[in-house]
Amino acid sequence: MSYVAPTKDILFCIKELAQIDEVAKIPAFAEAGFDTAQAVVEECAKFNEGVVAPLNWEGDKNPSFWKDGQVTTTPGFKDAFKQFAEGGWQGLQHPVEFGGQGLPKAIGAAAIEMLNSANTSFALCPLLTDGAIEALLTAGTPEQQQMYIPKMIDGTWTGTMNLTEPQAGSDLALVRTRAEPQPDGTYKIFGTKIFITFGEHDMAENIVHLVLARVAGAPEGVKGISLFIVPKFLVNADGSLGARNDVHCVSIEHKLGIKASPTCVLQYGDHGGAIGYLVGQENRGLEYMFIMMNAARYAVGVQGISVAERAYQKAVQYAKDRVQSRPVDGSMPGSAAIIHHPDVKRMLMTMRAYTEACRAMAFVAGAAYDASHHHPDEATRKQNQAFYEFLVPLVKGYSTEMSLDVASLGVQVHGGMGFIEETGAAQYLRDAKILTIYEGTTAIQANDLVGRKTIRDGGMVAKAICAQIAKTEGELAARSSVACRAVAKRLTAGRKALEDVIEFIVANTKTNPNAAFAGSVPYLMLAGNVVAGWQMGRALMIAEDRLAAGEDAEFMKTKIVTVRFYADHILSRAAGMRDAIVEGAESVTALSAEQF
Amino acid sequence: MSYVAPTKDILFCIKELAQIDEVAKIPAFAEAGFDTAQAVVEECAKFNEGVVAPLNWEGDKNPSFWKDGQVTTTPGFKDAFKQFAEGGWQGLQHPVEFGGQGLPKAIGAAAIEMLNSANTSFALCPLLTDGAIEALLTAGTPEQQQMYIPKMIDGTWTGTMNLTEPQAGSDLALVRTRAEPQPDGTYKIFGTKIFITFGEHDMAENIVHLVLARVAGAPEGVKGISLFIVPKFLVNADGSLGARNDVHCVSIEHKLGIKASPTCVLQYGDHGGAIGYLVGQENRGLEYMFIMMNAARYAVGVQGISVAERAYQKAVQYAKDRVQSRPVDGSMPGSAAIIHHPDVKRMLMTMRAYTEACRAMAFVAGAAYDASHHHPDEATRKQNQAFYEFLVPLVKGYSTEMSLDVASLGVQVHGGMGFIEETGAAQYLRDAKILTIYEGTTAIQANDLVGRKTIRDGGMVAKAICAQIAKTEGELAARSSVACRAVAKRLTAGRKALEDVIEFIVANTKTNPNAAFAGSVPYLMLAGNVVAGWQMGRALMIAEDRLAAGEDAEFMKTKIVTVRFYADHILSRAAGMRDAIVEGAESVTALSAEQF
Repeated sequence: MSYVAPTKDILFCIKELAQIDEVAKIPAFAEAGFDTAQAVVEECAKFNEGVVAPLNWEGDKNPSFWKDGQVTTTPGFKDAFKQFAEGGWQGLQHPVEFGGQGLPKAIGAAAIEMLNSANTSFALCPLLTDGAIEALLTAGTPEQQQMYIPKMIDGTWTGTMNLTEPQAGSDLALVRTRAEPQPDGTYKIFGTKIFITFGEHDMAENIVHLVLARVAGAPEGVKGISLFIVPKFLVNADGSLGARNDVHCVSIEHKLGIKASPTCVLQYGDHGGAIGYLVGQENRGLEYMFIMMNAARYAVGVQGISVAERAYQKAVQYAKDRVQSRPVDGSMPGSAAIIHHPDVKRMLMTMRAYTEACRAMAFVAGAAYDASHHHPDEATRKQNQAFYEFLVPLVKGYSTEMSLDVASLGVQVHGGMGFIEETGAAQYLRDAKILTIYEGTTAIQANDLVGRKTIRDGGMVAKAICAQIAKTEGELAARSSVACRAVAKRLTAGRKALEDVIEFIVANTKTNPNAAFAGSVPYLMLAGNVVAGWQMGRALMIAEDRLAAGEDAEFMKTKIVTVRFYADHILSRAAGMRDAIVEGAESVTALSAEQF
Repeated sequence: MSYVAPTKDILFCIKELAQIDEVAKIPAFAEAGFDTAQAVVEECAKFNEGVVAPLNWEGDKNPSFWKDGQVTTTPGFKDAFKQFAEGGWQGLQHPVEFGGQGLPKAIGAAAIEMLNSANTSFALCPLLTDGAIEALLTAGTPEQQQMYIPKMIDGTWTGTMNLTEPQAGSDLALVRTRAEPQPDGTYKIFGTKIFITFGEHDMAENIVHLVLARVAGAPEGVKGISLFIVPKFLVNADGSLGARNDVHCVSIEHKLGIKASPTCVLQYGDHGGAIGYLVGQENRGLEYMFIMMNAARYAVGVQGISVAERAYQKAVQYAKDRVQSRPVDGSMPGSAAIIHHPDVKRMLMTMRAYTEACRAMAFVAGAAYDASHHHPDEATRKQNQAFYEFLVPLVKGYSTEMSLDVASLGVQVHGGMGFIEETGAAQYLRDAKILTIYEGTTAIQANDLVGRKTIRDGGMVAKAICAQIAKTEGELAARSSVACRAVAKRLTAGRKALEDVIEFIVANTKTNPNAAFAGSVPYLMLAGNVVAGWQMGRALMIAEDRLAAGEDAEFMKTKIVTVRFYADHILSRAAGMRDAIVEGAESVTALSAEQF
């Protein structure tokens, strides 16, 4: 099998770290305890291993292609999407009233991870549809919700997010697509959108485009952007499909990776104007878009974990099969499988520790999201909201950057064979490279972390998280095992480094913004490293306890080693990262543009 | 222009760091002072910028292709190779008696760098030919040398290295290709070789394959491997071409990068046996091959610098052109070119500092090679030999690993456009990935560093280098500038970390080899980081002096900033790397193969 879902580690994260049985105490999730999680995870694993994963390499070889405005997806995608829809997977986290299953994100994250491990390109269609559903749930009228959401949940239609234009990438203030109000309350949309994922395809009957555009006379900049629904086919009052709307896919991109996912140039209004329907109020489009972007950013972070997991599995398999050279410790007389060589183990452990640490962080963030939306106590909601929002840029930025390292190591484990496309290891590296870019580059995540998540409250949430980490350090240090004490030491050093950096960011962002932003991405990477390491520290204590209780000894033992590896090899970078940020800002911006 | 050779920095390295005028005091290089270097570098820059660089992207789009045993290279390659040959570039470092120019490596490295920046795929043909020439210079008979070397130097023929077989990659003990002695003193060669770079192509009249094979009855393992010349066309006594030899290209690989470079599967002896000529003595093939591999490893390290330089140039250009968002310091009222954003500068400075530091290290190694071969004083030769040999795995391993990071950052600077193949940034990332693999993976370089270069002399050379670094620290610390003192601090921390690791490696390799080799690649990366940083420290003092003397102020100022950046952002990782090696070995190998 090309992919075996890591259900044990996923369920460990859901049960022990995200504490699903606590989530299930929230009335909205009363049905969603561990038993539900286990059933969903196992079913989902089966579907993705059997149906979606086998299409991954096929999609790389036979990407979606464009002809005369139509996009034909990779052979097998259409049928797999049908099965995905029929299985109810699109609606997992969406409200029951629209046909969804209303499960918590702490479980939904597992489904996102497995689908993306199985096939990142394929998974992008549901991922964007999720975003469109979120936006309509937040800002759509009841009629709009009723018209579009059930069909997206049941997979008859899919959704897209239309932000980027040639001149407007990270900077949405530069959006030029225009919306002209019509007497009937609709708008006519004119403009060009690029990088639209699954902007055109053959897997669904209709595509619900959510489009950022400017109404004539709107203020300049981001405060003059509105959000519109522009369906590929207009929808009649009875829900049946009407006329083809004036939005057309004029080309798709030739990309480094995720080749099966069509990345479309969409042309709006070349034949008189595309009919669009305002979502919410005029000029508040960016605000709504941020809702779907936040959901999407979290999901892209999970994609990082997904690609890393699959790259790891492939590398392990190769390392067990490939026989080459004698072990350095003389433990075998002849050539051994390369997994016996210390440096191969170092690479595999790096891949494994990174992946498990990011997974732990993501599931914990998922549980916070669930509490922030549905916990009966307002203070608890707010606290979880702040925690979740602080974690989103870390889940997105750190997990995707690590996925690049992991996928690159995956190729390296394969040696020369890794460079041959048919081996398949290189695809993960090519696919991973988009993850640090789309839904906001790592730098955009870091700006969010610095600006909205750290400066706005004077570092309060950031420091509160550090205090929680310190508590975990204390618990670790109080234990007698070598592993706990070693991890406590690294976690303390990491947390102190992070505190210094938070101090630095808070002190400098207004008075010396160049210095603060020179360290923004390193700050994100440090925070991601330490917060993920913190979750690994928690995992270590739980694993020790479960091991002592005789529960799944093999899994718990490997978890203990993996945590120790993470602490000694990844957390140990924290002090150097701190120095580069706190003492190294000057040289980052010292050269003028002309001096480059 | 798609590539502008960084002649200023190259000449700075040649003059100030490699001290070419000292090299020119060696009688063999009496003509090779700075003036010669400058003339060669400028001519070489012109050729590569104008002729070779424009074919780089073309080679990616239209790779070499195989049909019926023939390989047709990318349109334009054949003509460019003709010009390369006519310009005398193949012979730059080779002996005058065979038609070369006999220039030192301290100058030759510049030509390798520029050719590889211009077009890494194209450059591989000359790179392998260099290796074949080196092997024949070392171990060939005078007749063999006379028959093959002049034609390879003048570009009529090219050369290859045939090591790898499906079951024998890093582990050459597993080579199975066999050589059967014939009554006339020749051998018949039978077997399959894979991953043979430019093993078949249309740019030259003949191809001189150097092939590792086992003579019947030879000892098992690496001590039973011999080296053979197997020309594609047999060569008559008068130098004219005779019959087609029984070596055939049965396919070429479909690769992640360097697509224009044909990577061949060569079948020997399917039609009665390929005629081969023994080089040197039977069973000493690996020894000879190591000579060409060492030359090739150095060159591959330079390829890392080359790809990094070109990725950097492309990213700078894009960052200057692309307008997006306002600067965080409010220095411009509207959207600015993204080079004004601190994080973009951080990425560009990282790319620049890495590239310049690795270049500095490589050119200094080049000068040591020159002295080791040609200095009249034996003690000086030996000392330089030891220094050069210590540096080869660092130049190869560290420069190529850094090139991956640099090329990945290059894509990142481009944002979404970086992921579109036509932009060209992704090609450098794809190309770079082979550099950490071929001519010995980073792990193989690290084994060499640990085994041959550190353990064999009890760490003597390694410690002597640390003592030299300490001397530079003293000189830096004695200066009054902020930059010198900051760099001295980082260099001291780095050197101390390196000393700890050398101690650890020396202490553990025999008693606890798993622990030592768990840290082998991190040791290589730390040593590369510190040795390259040391050269940057030297560069800083020189730049300050030249600046004070009013020499090229603009260049010297940017060098000072770049050194400071390297120290604060890259050297600052040293302590964490030390901890991971010295304190983190246990968790690397704690899991058994079955536990993965």
